[in-house]
Order: sequence, then C-alpha cells, then structure tokens
Amino acid sequence: AVREFLEDYPPARQAELIEDLHPAEAEAVLRLLEPKERAAIVSYLDHDRQLELIESMSLEDAAALLRDMPHDDRADLVTRLDPDRSEMILRRMAQAERDDIRRLTQYEPGTAGSVMTTDYATLPPFVTVREAIDHLRREAPDRETILTNFVVDHQRRLIGSITLQALILARPTARVEDVMQPDPIRARVDDDREEVARKIAQYDLLALPIVDAEDRLVGIVTHDDALDILREEQSEDLLRFGAVDYDAAEADEDPGEEGIAAAVRRRIGWLLGLFMAAGISASIIYLFEWVNRFGRDTLAIDFQIFIPLLIGTGGNAGSQAVGTVIRGLALGDIREGDFFRVVSREALTGALLGSILGVIGFVASLVLCSIGVLGDVGFLADLRFSVVIALAVLGICTWATTVGSAVPIIARRLGIDPAVVSAPMISTLVDTTGLVIFYCIAIVLLMMLGN
Amino acid sequence: AVREFLEDYPPARQAELIEDLHPAEAEAVLRLLEPKERAAIVSYLDHDRQLELIESMSLEDAAALLRDMPHDDRADLVTRLDPDRSEMILRRMAQAERDDIRRLTQYEPGTAGSVMTTDYATLPPFVTVREAIDHLRREAPDRETILTNFVVDHQRRLIGSITLQALILARPTARVEDVMQPDPIRARVDDDREEVARKIAQYDLLALPIVDAEDRLVGIVTHDDALDILREEQSEDLLRFGAVDYDAAEADEDPGEEGIAAAVRRRIGWLLGLFMAAGISASIIYLFEWVNRFGRDTLAIDFQIFIPLLIGTGGNAGSQAVGTVIRGLALGDIREGDFFRVVSREALTGALLGSILGVIGFVASLVLCSIGVLGDVGFLADLRFSVVIALAVLGICTWATTVGSAVPIIARRLGIDPAVVSAPMISTLVDTTGLVIFYCIAIVLLMMLGN
Ligand SMILES: [Mg+2]
Ligand SMILES: [Mg+2]
Ligand SMILES: [Mg+2]
Ligand SMILES: [Mg+2]
Ligand SMILES: [Mg+2]
Ligand SMILES: [Mg+2]
Ligand SMILES: [Mg+2]
Ligand SMILES: [Mg+2]
Ligand SMILES: [Mg+2]
Ligand SMILES: [Mg+2]
Ligand SMILES: [Mg+2]
Ligand SMILES: [Mg+2]
Ligand SMILES: [Mg+2]
Repeated sequence: AVREFLEDYPPARQAELIEDLHPAEAEAVLRLLEPKERAAIVSYLDHDRQLELIESMSLEDAAALLRDMPHDDRADLVTRLDPDRSEMILRRMAQAERDDIRRLTQYEPGTAGSVMTTDYATLPPFVTVREAIDHLRREAPDRETILTNFVVDHQRRLIGSITLQALILARPTARVEDVMQPDPIRARVDDDREEVARKIAQYDLLALPIVDAEDRLVGIVTHDDALDILREEQSEDLLRFGAVDYDAAEADEDPGEEGIAAAVRRRIGWLLGLFMAAGISASIIYLFEWVNRFGRDTLAIDFQIFIPLLIGTGGNAGSQAVGTVIRGLALGDIREGDFFRVVSREALTGALLGSILGVIGFVASLVLCSIGVLGDVGFLADLRFSVVIALAVLGICTWATTVGSAVPIIARRLGIDPAVVSAPMISTLVDTTGLVIFYCIAIVLLMMLGN
Repeated sequence: AVREFLEDYPPARQAELIEDLHPAEAEAVLRLLEPKERAAIVSYLDHDRQLELIESMSLEDAAALLRDMPHDDRADLVTRLDPDRSEMILRRMAQAERDDIRRLTQYEPGTAGSVMTTDYATLPPFVTVREAIDHLRREAPDRETILTNFVVDHQRRLIGSITLQALILARPTARVEDVMQPDPIRARVDDDREEVARKIAQYDLLALPIVDAEDRLVGIVTHDDALDILREEQSEDLLRFGAVDYDAAEADEDPGEEGIAAAVRRRIGWLLGLFMAAGISASIIYLFEWVNRFGRDTLAIDFQIFIPLLIGTGGNAGSQAVGTVIRGLALGDIREGDFFRVVSREALTGALLGSILGVIGFVASLVLCSIGVLGDVGFLADLRFSVVIALAVLGICTWATTVGSAVPIIARRLGIDPAVVSAPMISTLVDTTGLVIFYCIAIVLLMMLGN
C-alpha cells in the first residue's frame, strides 16, 4: 500500500506527498521504507518536519537515519537540533560519520564549507578508465553523485576532474590522468556561497570542488544546491531592497512564515533609522517657512502643497536607479571601477526623465493657475511659479538618479553589500535633500525675477 | 601556441579568454580550432560577440558553425541574426538541422519551448541496459548530455527517464523499461520558463523533459540553463520592484549596459503614471488647507511641516511589506488563498511598528514643543498636537503594510505579475492616502478635544 501510495516517484516528489499527510501517518509510512529510501525522502522534507520527525525517533533510529542521509543535508539538520540531543545521537554513529558531521557543521553560515557535501567519489590519477568505472560502480550507492568525479594526488590535492560521460566514452585502457580535465575550476572553503553558485552557473558545472588553504579537496557543491543558493540569495536582495534586514544564509525560517515578532525585528531598525532621518525634513521645512509665507503672500500659492508630489517623484526616480545598479552589481555587469560611467549615465537619464516630467508639470501648473484652481495673481506670477515646479522636478530627478546610482557603488567599495541600499533609504535621502533643492530653486527664481 | 593559450580549460573559460582578445585575434584563434571545439566556445561568448563573429564569416563557415553548436544556443543566435542573412545561412545546412532551428525559433520568448534544446538522446523501452549504453556511447558526441536520458514509445510519447548513473549500476541484461524511472516529471512546451526552472530546482533534476499537447517529447531543459533562467527572472523581479519596466525573456541587451534612451523608455511609464497619481496629493493638501490654517491659528504649528516625515515613513513601511510579500509569492511560500492570513499579519506588524514609531514621535514632538522649537501655546495644545502625530504614524504604518501586502496578492489573482507592484507604486499610493488619514486624525482629535 505504501509502495502504491509513493509509486515510483523521485524522492523530492515523495517528500511532497508525505508532507501532506498527518505527522503520525507520515511517520508510519516512512517507517515502512528501506533505510536508504527513507533517508533520501527525509532530506527533502521541510526543515520543521525534519526536526519534528527526528525528535520523535529513538536515538538509535535517528543515528541510522543520519547515517544514510546526504552529508550536506544531515549536517544542516544537526545544526538545527538541540545540542544535547545531537550529541547523544552522534555518539551512536560510527567514528567516520561523526567526524564528517562535526567537520561540516563547523563552517560559518554563508561560506562554501557550509553548503558543500562530502559524499562524492575521488579517483587516483594512475588507474585505468576501466578500473575507474569499476571503482565508481562500487562507490555509487554511498555517493550523492558519480556524474562528476575528482582526481586527487596522494596528498588529496585536487589535480583533475572527469565526468562519468567522459569515462564511458574514453578507451577503457587509458589512464585517468590522460583523459581527465586537468586543473579544474574550484572554490575555497571560506569563499562566499554566492560566489560558489556564480561559478557553477558561469561554467555550467554539475559540481564545483571545494578546497582548503593547501588546495586539498574537502568537499563539493552540486548543481541542485547552487540553484537553491541562488534563489535564496537573490530573494535576500529583494527583501533588502525593500529595507528588510535579512540574511539568507542565517535565516532558519522563511520570513514569509515567521512570526510577527520576527517581522517587527527585521524591519524596525531601518524604519526607525529612516524615521529619524526623515525628521530632518520637518526641520528643513521649518527653516524655509519664510519662503512658504513669501509664496502665500505674494503669489497666493502654498508651495507646501507640491512637496509630496516633488519629493515623491524624486524617491521614485531614485528607486529605479538603485534597482538598476544593484541588479548590475549582483550580476557582475557593473563593477566598482565603473563608478563614473554609471553615475554620469544615470544622472543624464534622470535629467531626461526630469525634463519630460518638468514640461508636463509646467503645463499642468500653468493650466491650473490660469483657471484659478491655484492662486491666480496674474499671468507673470503663474508663469514664475510654474517654472519653479518644472525646474524642481528636473533638479530632483537628476539628483535622485545620481544618488541612487552612486550610493550602492560606494557601499560596495566600502565592503558593504550594495543590496542594503534600499528603495526606502534612497527615498528618504531624496525626501530631505530634495526639499533643499526645491526651496533653493524657488528662492533663486523668485529673487532673480523680483517680486 | 593556440593550444597553449587555451590549455585544457573548459569551453566557458576559453570563451572568457577569447573575449579579452582583440576581435581579429579572437577570430584567428577560433579559426585554428577543431569545428566542435570552436562551436562549444562560441556558444559561451557574449551575444554581441557571437553576432559580430558570425557576421564576419562566410556563409559556409557560418553554416558549419551552427551545425556544431548546442541546439538551444544556435536557435537563440539565429533569432538575433538579420533574417535575410540567416535565411542564406540556413539554406546551406542539412534539412534536419534547418528544420530543428526553425522549430526552436518559433516559440514565444519566455516559454519552455524558447529555452529547451533538442540535442538529447532517447531510448526505446524494450532494449537492454547494455544495448542502451552502447547506443548512448555512439550518440554522445552529437548530444549535449547523456547524463539523463528519456524513454519514449513508438509515438515519441514520454514514458520514462534514466540517468547514466542508473544504467551503469543496473544489470547489463535488464530491460530499460524495468530500470527506468516511469512517468517522469515534465513541463509543457508553452509553460512559463520560470515554472520550468522551478521544477528543476524542486526535484533536483539534471534535465527536465518538455512535451507537446499530445505528451510527445519535443525537447529538454538542462540544469545549467535553469540557473540562468532563475538568475534572469529574479533580477527582473528586482528591477520591477524598483518600478523599471523589464521583461527578462524579451530583453536582448542587459539593462545595465543599454543606452540612455532605452533606460528612459523603461522608466518613464511608471514615473509619469506615478507623477500624475502623486498630483492627487497636491489636491488633497489643497482641500484640507483649512486644517492647516486652523493649526497655524490656534496651535501656532504648521501641520504641513510633518507631512514628508509621515508619508515617507508610510512609504517605507509599505515597501517593506510589499518586498516581503512579493518574495513570498515568487518562492511559493505565499499563495492567493493566503490573502486574509497574510494581510492581517502584515496589518498587525504595521500596527506594532507604528506604535513604536508613534511613541518616539510623541515624545520627540512633546519635547520640541516644550522647549519652544515648535509653536508653544501651552501644554495642553502641545499634548494634543503630539497625539495627532503619534496616531498619524500608527494609522499610516498600519495602512501602509495592509496596502503593501494586499495589492501584490490581488495582482496575482488578476493574473498580473505581482512583481510589478513596486516600492514606488506603494509609496505613491500611501503618500496620497496617508495624507487623508493624517488630516482625518487631526480633524477628529482637534474637534473632539474642542479648541
Ligand atoms: Mg550545511
Ligand atoms: Mg551557465
Ligand atoms: Mg545537496
Ligand atoms: Mg539540496
Ligand atoms: Mg547573503
Ligand atoms: Mg547578496
Ligand atoms: Mg531559445
Ligand atoms: Mg532542489
Ligand atoms: Mg543549453
Ligand atoms: Mg547555457
Ligand atoms: Mg518574466
Ligand atoms: Mg517573475
Ligand atoms: Mg516617498
């Protein structure tokens, strides 16, 4: 019946089916399976389900389960376990397995070490292709993959790689070192995991070998985990762009699903910081109060009416620029050295966008003034006021795209993740500085033209 | 010398080395290589370099190059070629190759068909494992991969899949249909390419088979291309979140590198639309002018001073909510049916955030009033004004997170990509509606307490 229920689905699909069951049912189904099958399915379950399951098992069963799980997934699971309990489970495992788990759980979150696995096969350089295939055939049941295999010297230093495909196609009597790909692309164990995923994408790899400081092979990262890393890291960028404090490598739970307390914690920092920064905008309006009074008295127009429109548009233009630049930096299209080129292009883009909006704003303002909706104290005053609006839009848009493009590149130079430069941060920056631009244009123009 | 220069690097690395050369040099190096090697490298070159190269070649050489390129990459290249020239090149190719290119170029951008390749191997169900391996050995040189192979019936309907690993481990005399994975996970040729990448990620596949309406196998999408699709689609989300109009599937060039005209084109739509929407904010302030006058006259405080602070904070809280929800929708953590659960959680989060900021705003306002920086007409008036600020922050934050979470889910329900619900869009929405909230709270409180 269980066989029928799970049919011949791949483990990932079986895990989905099991997740839909009641926990007690799920456990019963899993108990009926072969240890290897069970372990493969459990490695695909949600982290919460994995924890529940292992906590409901006897220590012996838990040890047996860990023994058969993929090495990267079991290390992740052990990290989440209560330390006392995991210690008791580990004590029931063979020395080699225990050491493997201890080694893999020691790496910092976000490093290559934290995402690599150790259940791969290695080959010595001097064996023949036929011997290599026989060896892989024997090793396969305990390995996550034998599709890409790594050749190491007697000190375990990485000297080559060879795919199963290449082995099948090679002359059976050839030596591995003559048919392998020498000097394969690799990453260091303390490299950023995002860099690991990028290399796998760039070179279309099935698995990237990970080496230590002495160039000894210590693990591999497989293509499927690269996809997950990329997904998580890019969704981190999206959250950070929205000013949510999130670290994909450290987040255990998913922020969409975590409690309200966690959501408040992730957001209050930026929100409060920006709230206080935005307080400056109030001081600026307070300081330029005389300009408003001047406008009310001589033009019968309240300048402040247009402030949300003007600075809001600045924030929007700035958000567009910062989104474009963060994306470029993340994909490697924009580098630190491109600062001047990128920022000047963005400034020009902002000037063009501002010109278009400025013209529209000018016409709209003039029409509204003329039909008397806005204070109407004569055509010249209307014209003067409309020019202020148009120039303010132009100035604020240009400034916003300049700031929005410069700040992320400067952040990168300072070693800060450019993705923390969020749309709200740029909006708030442009809100306050945009006010100054607006009042300065108003003052200069009103003064120059006399009143 | 060329051999030495390129050493034994994989094609992707060789392509990088060649991209650093002068175009004439690059061409000379490529000419010295074997056709297959050349084609493999060219498939990794930038699209622009590919075009330059093929346009500088004779029609015969171009046809020879296309013959050896991976089928998906050559179809993409042909799409970019001048139609007249591509017609002349195609006429110099064998019928089967020509048909393959015509078939692959006909699919809409963004579909599974547009990203699939056709150089895979199929197996009939009734052959033995030994026969299958021999068959794959012969086919391999012309196939992109033999790591995953698909089993089709006499009508080419997909009935199974089997990895090279499984074949190597199986008994040589077993029949393929007895060792294959039956009923493999598949996608339809007109499915969204993002859905294809998601399936590959979810089930850790090396290649996903693509079938037509009759369930006949028409192509595969490989793991490496899934990585690229995911990268592009997620970076599309980032740009859209910043209110840049971008379609990853249709973008030929990269927006970081395209000209200023293109940048203006991608941004002016949203910017102008939001500019006009923001115009409403001016009308709202105009309409509530009497509240301002009332505040100035009775409290000696200009309410408008606090508008950028209040609505800016609302925009920030809204951006955080929309970022969180867009991410959840993109990763599948949030579904349409979760509307009430997600929106109520966000509203509560906004209320908590607003309470914290409200208390801080209340204290700051009271202090500023007391020391006379803000108009001071007695403690009671100060208190009353500070309560308005605090309640406005609370109300606007709650409203902002509600709107920011509701709009993307509603968009998804309407069949609109939730990622087009950008931070600027929510900011602008909150700017205008937040003003109404602010004025209403001010009116109610001032009226209730009498003056
Ligand atoms: Mg780990
Ligand atoms: Mg790639
Ligand atoms: Mg793994
Ligand atoms: Mg995995
Ligand atoms: Mg990260
Ligand atoms: Mg990142
Ligand atoms: Mg294509
Ligand atoms: Mg996966
Ligand atoms: Mg491909
Ligand atoms: Mg590719
Ligand atoms: Mg798309
Ligand atoms: Mg999308
Ligand atoms: Mg704003």
